[in-house]
Amino acid sequence: MRTLISGGLVVNAAGSARADVLVEGEKVAALLAPGLEPALDVDERVDATGKYVIPGGIDAHTHMEMPFGGTQSSDDFTSGTIAAAWGGTTTIIDFAVQAKGTSLLATLDRWHAKADGKCAVDYGFHMIVSDVDDSSLKEMGACLDAGVNSFKMFMAYPGVFYATDGEILRAMQRAREIGGTVMMHAENGIAIDELVAQALAEGRTDPVQHGLTRPPELEGEATSRAIALARVTGAPLYVVHLSAAQALDAVTEARDTGQNVFAETCPQYLYLSLEDMARPGFEGAKYVASPPLRPVEHQARLWRGLRTNDLSVVSTDHCPFCFADQKVLGQGDFSKIPNGMPGVEHRIDLLHQGVVRGEIGLERWVEICSTTPARMFGLHPRKGVVAPGADADLVVYDPAARQTISAATHHMNVDYSAFEGFELTGRVEVVLSRGRVVVDRSGFRGSAGHGRFLARELNQYLV
Amino acid sequence: MRTLISGGLVVNAAGSARADVLVEGEKVAALLAPGLEPALDVDERVDATGKYVIPGGIDAHTHMEMPFGGTQSSDDFTSGTIAAAWGGTTTIIDFAVQAKGTSLLATLDRWHAKADGKCAVDYGFHMIVSDVDDSSLKEMGACLDAGVNSFKMFMAYPGVFYATDGEILRAMQRAREIGGTVMMHAENGIAIDELVAQALAEGRTDPVQHGLTRPPELEGEATSRAIALARVTGAPLYVVHLSAAQALDAVTEARDTGQNVFAETCPQYLYLSLEDMARPGFEGAKYVASPPLRPVEHQARLWRGLRTNDLSVVSTDHCPFCFADQKVLGQGDFSKIPNGMPGVEHRIDLLHQGVVRGEIGLERWVEICSTTPARMFGLHPRKGVVAPGADADLVVYDPAARQTISAATHHMNVDYSAFEGFELTGRVEVVLSRGRVVVDRSGFRGSAGHGRFLARELNQYLV
Amino acid sequence: MRTLISGGLVVNAAGSARADVLVEGEKVAALLAPGLEPALDVDERVDATGKYVIPGGIDAHTHMEMPFGGTQSSDDFTSGTIAAAWGGTTTIIDFAVQAKGTSLLATLDRWHAKADGKCAVDYGFHMIVSDVDDSSLKEMGACLDAGVNSFKMFMAYPGVFYATDGEILRAMQRAREIGGTVMMHAENGIAIDELVAQALAEGRTDPVQHGLTRPPELEGEATSRAIALARVTGAPLYVVHLSAAQALDAVTEARDTGQNVFAETCPQYLYLSLEDMARPGFEGAKYVASPPLRPVEHQARLWRGLRTNDLSVVSTDHCPFCFADQKVLGQGDFSKIPNGMPGVEHRIDLLHQGVVRGEIGLERWVEICSTTPARMFGLHPRKGVVAPGADADLVVYDPAARQTISAATHHMNVDYSAFEGFELTGRVEVVLSRGRVVVDRSGFRGSAGHGRFLARELNQYLV
Amino acid sequence: MRTLISGGLVVNAAGSARADVLVEGEKVAALLAPGLEPALDVDERVDATGKYVIPGGIDAHTHMEMPFGGTQSSDDFTSGTIAAAWGGTTTIIDFAVQAKGTSLLATLDRWHAKADGKCAVDYGFHMIVSDVDDSSLKEMGACLDAGVNSFKMFMAYPGVFYATDGEILRAMQRAREIGGTVMMHAENGIAIDELVAQALAEGRTDPVQHGLTRPPELEGEATSRAIALARVTGAPLYVVHLSAAQALDAVTEARDTGQNVFAETCPQYLYLSLEDMARPGFEGAKYVASPPLRPVEHQARLWRGLRTNDLSVVSTDHCPFCFADQKVLGQGDFSKIPNGMPGVEHRIDLLHQGVVRGEIGLERWVEICSTTPARMFGLHPRKGVVAPGADADLVVYDPAARQTISAATHHMNVDYSAFEGFELTGRVEVVLSRGRVVVDRSGFRGSAGHGRFLARELNQYLV
Repeated sequence: MRTLISGGLVVNAAGSARADVLVEGEKVAALLAPGLEPALDVDERVDATGKYVIPGGIDAHTHMEMPFGGTQSSDDFTSGTIAAAWGGTTTIIDFAVQAKGTSLLATLDRWHAKADGKCAVDYGFHMIVSDVDDSSLKEMGACLDAGVNSFKMFMAYPGVFYATDGEILRAMQRAREIGGTVMMHAENGIAIDELVAQALAEGRTDPVQHGLTRPPELEGEATSRAIALARVTGAPLYVVHLSAAQALDAVTEARDTGQNVFAETCPQYLYLSLEDMARPGFEGAKYVASPPLRPVEHQARLWRGLRTNDLSVVSTDHCPFCFADQKVLGQGDFSKIPNGMPGVEHRIDLLHQGVVRGEIGLERWVEICSTTPARMFGLHPRKGVVAPGADADLVVYDPAARQTISAATHHMNVDYSAFEGFELTGRVEVVLSRGRVVVDRSGFRGSAGHGRFLARELNQYLV
Repeated sequence: MRTLISGGLVVNAAGSARADVLVEGEKVAALLAPGLEPALDVDERVDATGKYVIPGGIDAHTHMEMPFGGTQSSDDFTSGTIAAAWGGTTTIIDFAVQAKGTSLLATLDRWHAKADGKCAVDYGFHMIVSDVDDSSLKEMGACLDAGVNSFKMFMAYPGVFYATDGEILRAMQRAREIGGTVMMHAENGIAIDELVAQALAEGRTDPVQHGLTRPPELEGEATSRAIALARVTGAPLYVVHLSAAQALDAVTEARDTGQNVFAETCPQYLYLSLEDMARPGFEGAKYVASPPLRPVEHQARLWRGLRTNDLSVVSTDHCPFCFADQKVLGQGDFSKIPNGMPGVEHRIDLLHQGVVRGEIGLERWVEICSTTPARMFGLHPRKGVVAPGADADLVVYDPAARQTISAATHHMNVDYSAFEGFELTGRVEVVLSRGRVVVDRSGFRGSAGHGRFLARELNQYLV
Repeated sequence: MRTLISGGLVVNAAGSARADVLVEGEKVAALLAPGLEPALDVDERVDATGKYVIPGGIDAHTHMEMPFGGTQSSDDFTSGTIAAAWGGTTTIIDFAVQAKGTSLLATLDRWHAKADGKCAVDYGFHMIVSDVDDSSLKEMGACLDAGVNSFKMFMAYPGVFYATDGEILRAMQRAREIGGTVMMHAENGIAIDELVAQALAEGRTDPVQHGLTRPPELEGEATSRAIALARVTGAPLYVVHLSAAQALDAVTEARDTGQNVFAETCPQYLYLSLEDMARPGFEGAKYVASPPLRPVEHQARLWRGLRTNDLSVVSTDHCPFCFADQKVLGQGDFSKIPNGMPGVEHRIDLLHQGVVRGEIGLERWVEICSTTPARMFGLHPRKGVVAPGADADLVVYDPAARQTISAATHHMNVDYSAFEGFELTGRVEVVLSRGRVVVDRSGFRGSAGHGRFLARELNQYLV
Repeated sequence: MRTLISGGLVVNAAGSARADVLVEGEKVAALLAPGLEPALDVDERVDATGKYVIPGGIDAHTHMEMPFGGTQSSDDFTSGTIAAAWGGTTTIIDFAVQAKGTSLLATLDRWHAKADGKCAVDYGFHMIVSDVDDSSLKEMGACLDAGVNSFKMFMAYPGVFYATDGEILRAMQRAREIGGTVMMHAENGIAIDELVAQALAEGRTDPVQHGLTRPPELEGEATSRAIALARVTGAPLYVVHLSAAQALDAVTEARDTGQNVFAETCPQYLYLSLEDMARPGFEGAKYVASPPLRPVEHQARLWRGLRTNDLSVVSTDHCPFCFADQKVLGQGDFSKIPNGMPGVEHRIDLLHQGVVRGEIGLERWVEICSTTPARMFGLHPRKGVVAPGADADLVVYDPAARQTISAATHHMNVDYSAFEGFELTGRVEVVLSRGRVVVDRSGFRGSAGHGRFLARELNQYLV
């Protein structure tokens, strides 16, 4: 099966060029200068004239079917990856969640069972380490062999995922030893839980209290602490869903010294703010995630961080809960609102708005959405680049099309959109996953089960 | 004419992939996955098995035939560009030097006359602005139209190139207006000249005094000042030949705020030190350039800056003067030693040592030597990348070969090497310039006159 | 002659205590715990019950009868020092201004001639060095012997006071050698003059343009540069009339490293802003001084600097020009407005407002207004403290009295007040200069000629 | 009872002056200019000619009879305060240690019982808060009424004194509310305990391991964290026994923003280093305290911090354990070595060495040793200054005398000295405590029981 995508502007992180892309089987076989006519039969032709051809997006932070406080996130691996495909994301990296008392490898098996045969696009796993003990630490090595080399820990959520600084230290030492990367949810959960308890005791129960009890200083603090522990152990650190200027300052300072510290932010922190959490009634619950949305002035700092590369990646932290029957669990007690927002479908479009507005350049858009996550999480050069030999995960993107985000039209299995009514310029036209057209203007043409598990290599940014 | 370079690892800044590179005429026509056999006739085949295929190097800072204190640098555009080609550099950007009282466009004409028909590889020009007046400022716009959009100024060399802060301000305002970039030699020449006069008055005349009278603090100061003036005017700033940690700190701080500030360093600052200037006798004169070589501890800071991208480019500041009849002019008075060192031939090899030593990664090597200068100086996507449509400026690099640098074997027209006896791993094997093999193991196969002038577009890094 | 000031709270920089102060002749003879009744005859008793007894203020930055652009500042040494006395300031340090081509010692003689027999309170001199040459540098040593060890230079005012970085370097080297301190007017005058010329060329001639053509970045830049030159030479640096947050940042950073860098600000920068310069008509001319008043947000940063001691002193830069016949010289051309504002009379009251508002503590008020300038400029322990053996320069201050500042009631020889209508809490009640009551509720009781020249010792803060 | 100390140089933090000091009863009654002869009878005369007269030292950090791991520190309140007096320290502030499950007020009673009638000099208490619960928090207010307004918490020693970040947050909120100051032992004990366990598991059991398992980064981290929690709560923070440059950087940065953050260091961190802990055999145990002694390069940073006032106080953390029968408990397991060193007797002499060496000035010596702790801990103007009305806690200090520190001659109840053999310039000659000579050249003339409890006022440095 050969497909030729012709006439487009191929945008890679390191530059753009007009070229035709020849796909053979699952791979990009060639990039051809326009007009070069190799005598090759082609089965399908995609006209990309006036469009961009970009490597498929990689969303390095999703939570499909994630158990959370008695419920689970509302997208399963099928609905979630179909929505991803619609949005031009051809790879997700989801989190396998170790239940306390179980083994990492058993956890991985359980997540393989959830995802196997269900995914519309390729996927990998990070491992959430809930128990830090000799057995788990040993298993981290086996995880690497099984294609999982990034281990997420939490400085928040005491009693659930929370790891002590001693546990983080041990896990980091082990990560350093085996070449893994520690991912960190950096909020000082111990202090936050105290503020939450105080708010509830004082009858402050509305959704906005979720934000007010998690001040940005406590994200900054935890980020600094994680960086210090990483420095002591020599481990690489990847700070997930960074939302606060204070945390960004800590990351910037560490990166200035050449330390292996990386950070991602999410579209919600770039476009939404604490004010959304203060919407009338219980509406604010739609915007409850952790870390919380921040006062609007943090947004400009995050865009700047994307330009300076102190923020290297934008992921979604996609973790949808329906408003009607899940978010409502927190009525009268904000601390019971399931934490999370949907987003896997709109990341690439929302970031393209950054290009339209002049916040970032065209190549940087591709870099943030695809190339850097590919290199950071060991999928490169298979993913993240339009190049011969790479997987033919390709998106034809129309930079001039207009669209409006709405729950009425999105493909995620959730009854609201955090970006309802956002009018955007730019739209995904055609999506190929490993050489197969899975989305085009006729609709979704892929299938659950097409997506394959990706055993990942090491982080390419380590020095 | 078609050439196929097969079997190599194509290394671009954004990633490496095994691919064959098809060259048609002057351009890269296709990148082909290994094994893909398009039915195309090929005139020449280059076997790159086990080798890297990288975009030709771009040396953004050379001085061929540069007038300096009654003499001129010893390489002309022919010998200099042939040496460049030997070293895998297929583009140089040289400096047209406005003589006081002459016009910028006339200067450009003069430099075109020097280079036209003489160059073995492609070349562009920066403009050294010596007079800042209404006429020059107006002409800066015409320079842009003529393909020269980077304007170098000096905070050093009072009475020669020195520009006052008021002149710098005006030129920056104009650069901002037209989309140009100001390049800065950032040393506080006014203070330095005082220290030089004091040294001479006290009878301290040896070459090492050149270094001691130009302390790193005065490079740091001037760099900070240039950054402040750039902030006031909104102009992009490119700091040339940064050598001191203090200057790097200033650049880092500015870049952290997202200001359009960029910097290059040179191989001599990464490998040589003030101690070389203190060699017995007059030997130190070989190492006299400005800014001077620094105490050895600055080297690690510069390598770190290359990793953090606070240093974005490595150029050579190639400005050779023969020891026997030029450097000797400064015997008994270090201030009369012609300032400059040869280097255009060994930049790529010396930086490859950084890869071998683990200071930088493979892709970063290509980025520093080729991709970033291409983007910074408006040559991209024509140069700086191996991609369809790009100029076929290509280097086949053998990462395992061994060589020893020596004036006895180098191709630059200068009687010494600053890196004499350095044993390196890695060597240029084959070099193509716009599709033509100009160097291979049989020797230099190119010709003076092959190289063409490059009218450059705008800096792609501006935000 | 013995005077006993009883019942007050003696406030020194290092603490407050209820004590009686016994003055004998020109000196404080004793501090006595309340109720201690030494059998001593007393000639005069001052009841300070409910009042503060503080060391007389030291205004380290005044310009009496200063020549400026064909006119001179409107207070002479008599009117100026009487006004100072009214405001609780018992020492001024004025600037002797070297005219180009004259000697420092001749300059000093000239200023002695101006002040001798004219002053109502004690006075010292700083030296403005306009020529930096072998002769001046040599004379700096003689100035030290003559009681003048602080040498002011200007990075602003090209063609008038401006010193090049080379001249500054030489003067700093000399200051370092002899133990003197260099005072710096830190604005990049070269760049500023360019902006001024541009404004005038574009017909922007109103007083507010004085502020807009001297952006805070150019004060920050010059401050950083002065600090760098001080670091290279090892000289102590005292930055005069610091007005911009950018300059304060530079000072803070240097002080964090332990460098001998000090800074003063002035009341006008704490209470007035750029908006005052934009008052309708030509009213803004009243507020024209250099550096200019800044946007209002700088004020909070300056107060903070006073608390953190990155700003150590508040002086007035008293340099009055009458509105009616002097300021008007700049109508139609802001660059011709005489630069300066009156202020010597109200510094202590205006700073006391900082105590009232909670910006600074009571002891810090005394430290800023008296103790630190005394130690900084070698007048301590003779001045700046209420202690046995110190000069009996004493102020009885009523912290509860109310007053309104007005040109109608002030004692300075100038036809407007920059603080017209300011309502203040606190007022000077009684002032002693070297044991003599010079101001009390009956009015001015001192005399021109009472004040003596103070030969000053070295800066006590140097490390 | 009247005493006249005549002929000395009275050194206060804000300046020095030759003056006679008249003591009447327990108070300083007058400072008299030399030669002033008030007709007052005097009972005792102390000739201080050629000597300094300074306010008695205040050691804000001692642990007498402190329970620690089954033993207790070897000085009781009698031996410890006599040793203090010998060394010119006339006030100690010791720590009352809440045992878990007991009340703060009961704790205070217990400590009063220990000290009452035993002390040779005056004393106050800080409170170590081991339980943070509603009851303790409420009692903090009662402690204030009882004269104890500083509350120490530990980020180290899990299972013993360790407080969680939530507990720290609550205590800080309460401190903010009542006007108290939180004192912090800032080391990340959770991470450290992990490193300790690893060292023991690997058979690394020597005393130096105590230092190696407590890296300076983990003191820096905890200090940053304490500062962040203080910022969130608005509470004043006093960092005890700061030893690492990393921690000092965090304090400096916070102080630059005007936050109420203060820090002390101790003589052992200024003069001793990690190398002492690595002495042969078990000798290193003598130097085991927490935080540990640091690599020698930290010393210069601490001295600089004392000059910049980022370190405001030097206390001793006096906590002696005899080598023969207490330190030996840790043979074969460094984690069992009682943590602490003797020092109360030599602080003023050791700091005077800083004056001799030129590290600090004379007034700064007094400020660090006496005035600042007095103001910080609410003892001023009663203590910390030589002024009428202040307690007559006075030291006549001979700046020229020579002495050698030795356990053979010291007065502390401990069998070794950490400064054995140190040769010092300067020596305490006469010590008065509240008007009574307690030490002179004839020996100790005071008595256990002379010292009184000091109910302390609020921190005077808060803004």
